[in-house]
Amino acid sequence: MPTIVVDVMPKSELLDPQGKAVSGAFSRLGVASFSDVRIGKRFELTVDGDVTDDVLAEAKKIAEDVLSNSVIEDVVGIEVVE
Amino acid sequence: MPTIVVDVMPKSELLDPQGKAVSGAFSRLGVASFSDVRIGKRFELTVDGDVTDDVLAEAKKIAEDVLSNSVIEDVVGIEVVE
Repeated sequence: MPTIVVDVMPKSELLDPQGKAVSGAFSRLGVASFSDVRIGKRFELTVDGDVTDDVLAEAKKIAEDVLSNSVIEDVVGIEVVE
Repeated sequence: MPTIVVDVMPKSELLDPQGKAVSGAFSRLGVASFSDVRIGKRFELTVDGDVTDDVLAEAKKIAEDVLSNSVIEDVVGIEVVE
């Protein structure tokens, strides 16, 4: 069955404490290639049947209204994966 | 600066309680297009400089060792985003 992947990230202007913690762990591990780490959420919605325009529109609405908090997060991607 | 996106999801054979909770909310909201919801993590690693093979190899190693718990999670994607 097809899957719609919704990616949600914290707004770029906000501090990401989780990301900072992981970034700190990198430097303690001697990993220096990455200057910043940001952590968000990835949702996989399994679709019953085909991905019609209506289903995609519903996924977009849900992504904005339910899966993300528009005050602190952005929906950065909605992708259909067969 | 280029970014490497690492996607981590709970192993498919494991119960995903968070996903079930969101799935339950969907039915209360009258959303019926999606039979299942699974929730994972999305990491954005900002790369200092170019994404060389070494940097990509390091990202893969970190994804397995630090960013995911191989007992309960799978790294489902590592992608360079310019």
